[in-house]
Amino acid sequence: MAAKSPQRQPVVGGRAAVSPTAVREAALTLFAERGYHGTALSQIAKALDIQTPSLYNHMASKQDLLVAILQDTTDRVLAEYDAAVDGVEDVGERLSAATYTYALRHATHPREAVIVNRDATAIDEPVRAAVYAKRRKHADDFRELIQKGVESGRFDVENATVAAFAILEMCVSIARWFDPDGPVSAEEIARQHGEFALRIVGVRSALSACSDGAS
Amino acid sequence: MAAKSPQRQPVVGGRAAVSPTAVREAALTLFAERGYHGTALSQIAKALDIQTPSLYNHMASKQDLLVAILQDTTDRVLAEYDAAVDGVEDVGERLSAATYTYALRHATHPREAVIVNRDATAIDEPVRAAVYAKRRKHADDFRELIQKGVESGRFDVENATVAAFAILEMCVSIARWFDPDGPVSAEEIARQHGEFALRIVGVRSALSACSDGAS
Repeated sequence: MAAKSPQRQPVVGGRAAVSPTAVREAALTLFAERGYHGTALSQIAKALDIQTPSLYNHMASKQDLLVAILQDTTDRVLAEYDAAVDGVEDVGERLSAATYTYALRHATHPREAVIVNRDATAIDEPVRAAVYAKRRKHADDFRELIQKGVESGRFDVENATVAAFAILEMCVSIARWFDPDGPVSAEEIARQHGEFALRIVGVRSALSACSDGAS
Repeated sequence: MAAKSPQRQPVVGGRAAVSPTAVREAALTLFAERGYHGTALSQIAKALDIQTPSLYNHMASKQDLLVAILQDTTDRVLAEYDAAVDGVEDVGERLSAATYTYALRHATHPREAVIVNRDATAIDEPVRAAVYAKRRKHADDFRELIQKGVESGRFDVENATVAAFAILEMCVSIARWFDPDGPVSAEEIARQHGEFALRIVGVRSALSACSDGAS
């Protein structure tokens, strides 16, 4: 590839062509594919078609790229949860909306999901503890929502913690199996998972009467 | 550690102390913790307290260890499914039993689950294709079971493939979050997931009437 020759891509020329967004995109793709530890800065530079030293015009370190991805992703997950349940009174509708948005994120942001679930251990303290605390906050929000539904008599589950794990993890796994070019859209997958969440907690939503299914 | 000295652990001495099961156990733990690519044979030898050359008395290669783990795990998953549904007529009971056994496997064999889900890409052909075919067979068994329940009017799901993924993946994820020293036993987690599976497909099993939960 001619573009790889040092003469072709001087530092200044590379800098002009590369945006912070492009650096983040290249890091996202490579971290997701090869893992944080398996990705060299030289590979990120190559993906951007610049020399490795030029990369330092756009970021401080590989660690900083990972931290930015993890902080941004966990912040967005919490913000999306808050936006989904904001102003929604009914606990069932809250659970359905929170599950929809979490499922949709995993269908549309699979790279971030893979990195958060595999490479969070690779970030240094104190950022790691902060990222973990945000992930716990999100899981706690779900658990408390389910517990509230149980206490109000609207939900029927034996253990809110187990139900919360089941709902959250079936959403997380969408990032592994969902095919954006497949027959079912991301929004439709998310909607069905919102329905699954209601069913898991014992709400049959707008579906058919239970007399058909009772054993 | 004195045992690491070459004089202490000659090849023959190491051989006498190490069983194939012990080699498999050490590989399982290290592959699960560090990944297949991140584990050196010298680390497996060290865990067994033998010299690396001694290891070749017990296995042909690191690849062979991985192949044995993946083949054994996928074979057992299929055998456990068959045993769970054998002689069970009712499609709901079949789904519940198949989910119970798959969930229980992930609660009790977390190392195997991590390796199958992360390192299957590291095995060479033609074994990789055979392992993948077995995994697809298991997913197909679930999908066809759900489809059969839908066709018989016993289950109520919009898309059997999506429901099968949701059920299978919530079971797989147990390997990541379940704590064997926690307050809920593996069998109880598995039982609750069997119940979640029935709920996801629209069967309320032995639970309370749906009039409470309908929105």
